[in-house]
Amino acid sequence: MNNNNNNNDNDNDNTPLNNTSRITLNHGAGGREMQKFINKLIVDKLKNGILERLDDCAVLENHMKKRIAMTTDSYVVSPIFFDGGDIGRLAVSGTVNDLSTSGAKPYALSLAFILEEGMPLSSIEKIVHSIAATAAEAGVKIVTGDTKVVERGKCDQIYINTCGIGMIDEGINISTYNANIGDSIFVTGPIGNHEIAMLRARKMLDFEFHTVSDVAPLNKNVELLLSKTKKIRVIKDPTRGGLASALNEIAEHSNCEVYLYENQIPIDPDVHSVCEIVGFDPLYLANEGKFIIIADHSAETESAIYSSFEGAKLIGKIKSTHHRKGVFMETYSGGIRKLGVLETTQLPRIC
Amino acid sequence: MNNNNNNNDNDNDNTPLNNTSRITLNHGAGGREMQKFINKLIVDKLKNGILERLDDCAVLENHMKKRIAMTTDSYVVSPIFFDGGDIGRLAVSGTVNDLSTSGAKPYALSLAFILEEGMPLSSIEKIVHSIAATAAEAGVKIVTGDTKVVERGKCDQIYINTCGIGMIDEGINISTYNANIGDSIFVTGPIGNHEIAMLRARKMLDFEFHTVSDVAPLNKNVELLLSKTKKIRVIKDPTRGGLASALNEIAEHSNCEVYLYENQIPIDPDVHSVCEIVGFDPLYLANEGKFIIIADHSAETESAIYSSFEGAKLIGKIKSTHHRKGVFMETYSGGIRKLGVLETTQLPRIC
Repeated sequence: MNNNNNNNDNDNDNTPLNNTSRITLNHGAGGREMQKFINKLIVDKLKNGILERLDDCAVLENHMKKRIAMTTDSYVVSPIFFDGGDIGRLAVSGTVNDLSTSGAKPYALSLAFILEEGMPLSSIEKIVHSIAATAAEAGVKIVTGDTKVVERGKCDQIYINTCGIGMIDEGINISTYNANIGDSIFVTGPIGNHEIAMLRARKMLDFEFHTVSDVAPLNKNVELLLSKTKKIRVIKDPTRGGLASALNEIAEHSNCEVYLYENQIPIDPDVHSVCEIVGFDPLYLANEGKFIIIADHSAETESAIYSSFEGAKLIGKIKSTHHRKGVFMETYSGGIRKLGVLETTQLPRIC
Repeated sequence: MNNNNNNNDNDNDNTPLNNTSRITLNHGAGGREMQKFINKLIVDKLKNGILERLDDCAVLENHMKKRIAMTTDSYVVSPIFFDGGDIGRLAVSGTVNDLSTSGAKPYALSLAFILEEGMPLSSIEKIVHSIAATAAEAGVKIVTGDTKVVERGKCDQIYINTCGIGMIDEGINISTYNANIGDSIFVTGPIGNHEIAMLRARKMLDFEFHTVSDVAPLNKNVELLLSKTKKIRVIKDPTRGGLASALNEIAEHSNCEVYLYENQIPIDPDVHSVCEIVGFDPLYLANEGKFIIIADHSAETESAIYSSFEGAKLIGKIKSTHHRKGVFMETYSGGIRKLGVLETTQLPRIC
């Protein structure tokens, strides 16, 4: 402050940013240094005809009277780089996938960084590159953004918020409130990989195995699925709290019994082994590239799901609450186990 | 984790939250404790027919083919409570005002909290109350949200991200790129109050004065203005970096000279005195409830602006870049002062 403006007329500073350097409070102070940082390290990599206008507010054309889906998530994962992804890929995938849970086609994303003083610029560059690549993979534009810098010790390197909007075609009505008695329950692939990969990245497991995070945008698969059938009732991503928690939410919202077959639930051998050794339940482990799909019980929808999601498995069905509500699983041994809601603890900062 | 689920069937726990208690990692862990915290402390106060569905994604009806405006901001202000407002009022007002800068009517907001372990629940309750009140004042719904909890020392009590979408009526074309030669420049009231109030809240000034933040949603004023005239070219909120920085952005985007009259710029006596004593330049101080408005030079638009914003003042005009580009001010003494872009430093964490 204090009239600390200068009269330098050279607004188009072409000196390169030194990426061996680190974030300072000046990178968030609203002055020329911040402009240069944002333009070179962020906007240049994400530009798409809208973002680089750097208006306070993006303006999007809209020629449709379609319903609008809107979702937001903050990503505070630690560590920020891990096998299979990083916080940037997570932020784009998570928000795109949340839009897909309503059957919406992603239309635009916002991107907000909170950066810790001292963070290496090279890490930010790597994350922005990953954001650009994942957005391209999902076919979605980042249209507006924000960057704040906080003092050392007031953040854990970087927190990212992404908010997404999408458009829902007519005839699509997908929600956790829509499961019907008799419906089939699918999961689109093996569960637990993201959380086990995070434990490995944190070096919390001191034995040899190799599991990478499944983090990925799945909107193209959902678009393919909805081009084949509109008879999808629920799409839900089993992130924090895993398959069991997501199904409990569906049982609660749709007022039904979820009935699973343990021997149908796909789990990778490495994830299975780690869970056996450490005593984790894979049904409660976070995923970042899987969906639960609930649809009417028919050969047509089943085939549409299998051809849209390689690796999808039928894992259970929806029953009435005639004698009970919640999530129940027929175990390998033929018994019935209730899968409750996690009371409190779960590994924090995994997504 | 570790199968730490229990089989408690009582999903509708009615025990009150103890608001003398503090945030724990369990409040963000995805289990029942988090559900209860979010329902009682957040959703109950903000419910509107959409938010309380707690779907991963809100679905909004849309019967218009209007252009969509989208904006995001993270709020990391310190302290979180100050004279005239708090971080909650700031988060809603800031995003609503950013939507207004494109002439959009706010349609829906997302709300994402990052909370620090140990934060008093009573503070969160106060902030959510303020968010609800400000959203009601602005007439906008919060339709989706997210809550993360990070360990003590990884945040500064609370960071809030709000993303907003709005709809732009036909015939409206407002942007920092649209200033024209001959246009009049207005500011909607006295400048500098927010930043001076923040300095006071931080106890950085050890003398007697009373300045409160101007933080407020201004969308209703903008709607009134646009109902009277469509001939508005630029609306811009002079937040971080103040009036001078915002006008520099307009000069850059519209490729013009901004010419100000120092004796027309409204400044409250207390703000003026503080600036005199401490040596601040009020033109670079942050505002959170003011707009710069640029419109064609005519009695009709001038009258529309004055009747929509009590306290608005004509402070300058747009000139061609014939001999110079940037922001210039005719001073009290009749000289010309160039108002440059801040190079780096500014008081951080004020908005």
